[in-house]
Amino acid sequence: MSHKIAILGASGYTGAELVRLIATHPGMQIVALSADRKAGQSMGAVFPHLRHLDLLELVTIDQIDFGGVDLVFCALPHATSQEVIRELPKTVKIVDLSADFRLRDAAAYEKWYGKPHAAPEQQAEAVYGLTEFYRDEIRAARLVAGTGCNAATGQFALRPLIAAGVIDLDEIVIDLKTGVSGAGRSLKENLLHAELSEGTHAYSAGGTHRHLAEFDQEFSAVAGRPVQVQFTPHLLPANRGILATVYVRGSAETVHETLRAAYADEPFLEVLPFGELPSTRHVRGSNFCHLGVVGDRIAGRAVVVAALDNLTKGSSGQALQNANLMLGNAETEGLMLAPVFP
Amino acid sequence: MSHKIAILGASGYTGAELVRLIATHPGMQIVALSADRKAGQSMGAVFPHLRHLDLLELVTIDQIDFGGVDLVFCALPHATSQEVIRELPKTVKIVDLSADFRLRDAAAYEKWYGKPHAAPEQQAEAVYGLTEFYRDEIRAARLVAGTGCNAATGQFALRPLIAAGVIDLDEIVIDLKTGVSGAGRSLKENLLHAELSEGTHAYSAGGTHRHLAEFDQEFSAVAGRPVQVQFTPHLLPANRGILATVYVRGSAETVHETLRAAYADEPFLEVLPFGELPSTRHVRGSNFCHLGVVGDRIAGRAVVVAALDNLTKGSSGQALQNANLMLGNAETEGLMLAPVFP
Amino acid sequence: MSHKIAILGASGYTGAELVRLIATHPGMQIVALSADRKAGQSMGAVFPHLRHLDLLELVTIDQIDFGGVDLVFCALPHATSQEVIRELPKTVKIVDLSADFRLRDAAAYEKWYGKPHAAPEQQAEAVYGLTEFYRDEIRAARLVAGTGCNAATGQFALRPLIAAGVIDLDEIVIDLKTGVSGAGRSLKENLLHAELSEGTHAYSAGGTHRHLAEFDQEFSAVAGRPVQVQFTPHLLPANRGILATVYVRGSAETVHETLRAAYADEPFLEVLPFGELPSTRHVRGSNFCHLGVVGDRIAGRAVVVAALDNLTKGSSGQALQNANLMLGNAETEGLMLAPVFP
Amino acid sequence: MSHKIAILGASGYTGAELVRLIATHPGMQIVALSADRKAGQSMGAVFPHLRHLDLLELVTIDQIDFGGVDLVFCALPHATSQEVIRELPKTVKIVDLSADFRLRDAAAYEKWYGKPHAAPEQQAEAVYGLTEFYRDEIRAARLVAGTGCNAATGQFALRPLIAAGVIDLDEIVIDLKTGVSGAGRSLKENLLHAELSEGTHAYSAGGTHRHLAEFDQEFSAVAGRPVQVQFTPHLLPANRGILATVYVRGSAETVHETLRAAYADEPFLEVLPFGELPSTRHVRGSNFCHLGVVGDRIAGRAVVVAALDNLTKGSSGQALQNANLMLGNAETEGLMLAPVFP
Repeated sequence: MSHKIAILGASGYTGAELVRLIATHPGMQIVALSADRKAGQSMGAVFPHLRHLDLLELVTIDQIDFGGVDLVFCALPHATSQEVIRELPKTVKIVDLSADFRLRDAAAYEKWYGKPHAAPEQQAEAVYGLTEFYRDEIRAARLVAGTGCNAATGQFALRPLIAAGVIDLDEIVIDLKTGVSGAGRSLKENLLHAELSEGTHAYSAGGTHRHLAEFDQEFSAVAGRPVQVQFTPHLLPANRGILATVYVRGSAETVHETLRAAYADEPFLEVLPFGELPSTRHVRGSNFCHLGVVGDRIAGRAVVVAALDNLTKGSSGQALQNANLMLGNAETEGLMLAPVFP
Repeated sequence: MSHKIAILGASGYTGAELVRLIATHPGMQIVALSADRKAGQSMGAVFPHLRHLDLLELVTIDQIDFGGVDLVFCALPHATSQEVIRELPKTVKIVDLSADFRLRDAAAYEKWYGKPHAAPEQQAEAVYGLTEFYRDEIRAARLVAGTGCNAATGQFALRPLIAAGVIDLDEIVIDLKTGVSGAGRSLKENLLHAELSEGTHAYSAGGTHRHLAEFDQEFSAVAGRPVQVQFTPHLLPANRGILATVYVRGSAETVHETLRAAYADEPFLEVLPFGELPSTRHVRGSNFCHLGVVGDRIAGRAVVVAALDNLTKGSSGQALQNANLMLGNAETEGLMLAPVFP
Repeated sequence: MSHKIAILGASGYTGAELVRLIATHPGMQIVALSADRKAGQSMGAVFPHLRHLDLLELVTIDQIDFGGVDLVFCALPHATSQEVIRELPKTVKIVDLSADFRLRDAAAYEKWYGKPHAAPEQQAEAVYGLTEFYRDEIRAARLVAGTGCNAATGQFALRPLIAAGVIDLDEIVIDLKTGVSGAGRSLKENLLHAELSEGTHAYSAGGTHRHLAEFDQEFSAVAGRPVQVQFTPHLLPANRGILATVYVRGSAETVHETLRAAYADEPFLEVLPFGELPSTRHVRGSNFCHLGVVGDRIAGRAVVVAALDNLTKGSSGQALQNANLMLGNAETEGLMLAPVFP
Repeated sequence: MSHKIAILGASGYTGAELVRLIATHPGMQIVALSADRKAGQSMGAVFPHLRHLDLLELVTIDQIDFGGVDLVFCALPHATSQEVIRELPKTVKIVDLSADFRLRDAAAYEKWYGKPHAAPEQQAEAVYGLTEFYRDEIRAARLVAGTGCNAATGQFALRPLIAAGVIDLDEIVIDLKTGVSGAGRSLKENLLHAELSEGTHAYSAGGTHRHLAEFDQEFSAVAGRPVQVQFTPHLLPANRGILATVYVRGSAETVHETLRAAYADEPFLEVLPFGELPSTRHVRGSNFCHLGVVGDRIAGRAVVVAALDNLTKGSSGQALQNANLMLGNAETEGLMLAPVFP
């Protein structure tokens, strides 16, 4: 049986990534694709890499009949998403890929995003979409909030360690490197090829990046007390990939063993042998996350490195994984594509 | 039913690409992976992007029991391949990805490769593996010779035009741009990142590139008289992708219509609307080839541009497409993966 | 003695490149930098790589007192440039980097740029700025029109051959690959890193690129009869560099010898030994153009390859070379910087 | 007056970078270039970007008459360098770019490099070449040891802070990202374009990178007590550039003010306004180092980011800066080239 899927915001990179993945998913059928500014165009014109698929023309959201839709992927910009989701029929399941429903606390949302939430009722209902840690809630949810791609990477490295109490909660530094597709397809001078290739820089440093809101919420919940991490993202001259280098205090061997045990049965989380570290190149285009741990010459310190593809495991792959759970599919269905290297 | 597959030369890029594709192929099971210099290592150590697969350890070729093998992909270097294939049991089907069996004429082989062929019997038996043009022969073949990746790209642009007699056979120029993975994983100064990124240059210019031997053989056979093209390859600072810009003389509209008609039923060949041109970015990681045609302001001239991924449609994807035919699978099985963009 | 220089349009890449070069030029002093939309900002904020220089704040053009200015570099967008230059005092020398004054014929301008020229008087006065071929006129000129960067590259490969009558004028194909900085710092989706890296495509194919107007004008003038070339530009995933692969009919040895002789005394044009071909990587950041010639296996055909940096020799370096002549400096002053490799 | 210069190991990237810089240096003349394996070749064949220079043929070291040489740049591999320098005449000044003379302590050398030093007498004589902090010693030295490129970057960020006592010496983390040219022109699988482009990974993590020996030596000397930092280098898909993200404990404002004051008169060290962070793209090809400081939301923490070009300020530019001092030139002579962007 094939579930009927609508994708809102299909002209962005996460929308296209959803279409790419669903193209070979045996149990999903795309019945609507929306893109406000590009409505009327074919998806193949907007994304020529999808031209071999027999896709529908892009429409505006109000042209969609949600009556026949089982699940909506909402890949709209932040703030727009809450306006749209508020109005969707209650019968439709939703995976939102924006930041709008990630924070459970209305005050936290307002603090980090600068204005009150426009859909507080749906905010209260939403389940945080980090699949490996919210499986039961996601299965039962109507609305799942996809995580930030950086937030997902950092959590894969840290959640089991915080839960097990094997690291110092006040001494966590996440130095993160991310590919440019995470910034989307928007027209900004600092996203031009000539501005980005052949170099790197830090941005949103000093505790200002919004994904910190997710780290705060989730790590504090796991720890049972407030946890604040230090977080510095850097832009990488690559399209896809996030590498989080996480500095922790604790026994490196215990850290490694804790992650290994936590993820032993996870289909997408690969913990490397102790002392080996991952590369973003080896997860490109896939739903896998590779994790490595190394000790330091200074006793009691360890480095955990996590690598994933921001568009797949960090966003659209995660969304599909969640949708599989919500629709009763096998969790890995359509997601076992091997990484593309080189 | 699952066919049993061996891959010889699994530590190179085309070997890894075969494993990537077979990983989600429903009807194939890898039973042996060889790599002489890296024998004893795990495939996940040699190619960490494949570490999630439950792969066998790399072995030497003489450690393989070919009795239980249905089909061998031979991804060995040129010259080595003929030595190995000569000794394989006659009961096993073979898709060779090297240059060793592409030329039907022993003299042509000796001319372009500088020494006599070591397996003339197998050379005589081999079928040229350009699937779309040799389907019946491939279905019946025991040994199929994968084409050169550049040779495939040029032929997709030109074969229907030569066959239909709509272009001037003496006025064909192929200006080709190729990604670096086509040169393999060999240790050469000119393949270092610092030597290749951020620029381009022509190489093997002036009629010296060995893929010209394939162009000569195939175009002459199609035309029924000798055809020689001019061919200049350039190295692109990208890992994957070939773009062939082909200059022809003839009516651009007729050229476009000829290609469109020839490929109307082909699952992997996409002819764009007249006047639109393809990009290598839109076929990356996939088995698709995109083709475009544009006329010139000088009457009677046209440009055909063909784009494909050298490791997939240009090599390992083509090999799998051929293997599907040889094993009685659907031709597209395991090959409908959508391109990875961005 | 130091000449006083103003740069209009200093917030674009060619403006910044001018500042970079003048920074170590012993005989020039920047006295004004304009940028309409970014007026009021410091140059170091707009281009942090120039922050070590003691540069003036960006102003609007009407804030500049041209009385104390010896020479203006006008790096404004096409069409804007003619409006501005029309109003500049006649006492000031001008090197324009836009397309506005490249065409001597008013009808040709209107045909290629779609509207009548707004400064016909200045158009008549302007000298075409391909230094090596217009030295005397440039020395005497008040207004010099910088060439198109692609147009410069193609002309370096072809002008001596056309002048010497050693190639067939009706059989010239220029297949050109260019880095992305040639498209400027404008906000276009197709200039984003995620859209451009890791691949290539042709654009403005079929005789529609405006630099063809320059080829037509110049080649016809050299030949003494109309000459039309075929020209296909491709976008390269690199910031700087143009490689023109030029297909000609004639004796390859004669072609090589003709170029060698023509450029024997040129400080910036390097003709490689016969059979060697250049790379864009080896001219990066410099004012040099490397040229190579190779014959083809088909008798009577040759390939000329020319490589230069579009922002330096193709634009701002050329502009400075012209300014040196106009101001009575040594032509090479400030321009002998060696290429940056790797 | 022009000093006579020999460059040993001219076929590597640091050797070529020295030639590039000296090409426009008014007071130096290259009289010998050595490259053992490539002796007999022209420098223009080995590095075509230098072909416009009238350079000498590459020779072996024993072919050089050091009698007429004022200063030798030794760009040989580690371990080889000490064997060669031991035998050079005492009359010649030497700037060594290898790791061989960076460590003052023979035991530290043996610990980090795995064998006893072969030139202990010269080791004792050598001055550590971090120009801004050893000017007087360098002016008087016969043998100067160029610093590690990573070591230089980290020290620019940290030395003034350690000297001023404004940060916690036990809580320093250096997360560093470096371009690939730092690894040299050696033939290693992990330096191939296809292995490195489009991604990142950490290497030599956990306190094993040899540049830690320099950090230990220098920071401990400045602090007057043992200091150990945590250091994780990452490989960046870019040819040039190092970005060091340094996590420290202390007042961010004090940290910024300390750096600003320390470098106020330095010609190559640019401290950005508080809160702004540098990019490697803005120092490419130049001898500048840009530094930025930002506070963190967690009180008492700051991040210092330093960016430089590993081949210029991190290696050959630093070497030339030191040579200028040793020869009595102005320190900045030949080094004020502006960065190349984009």
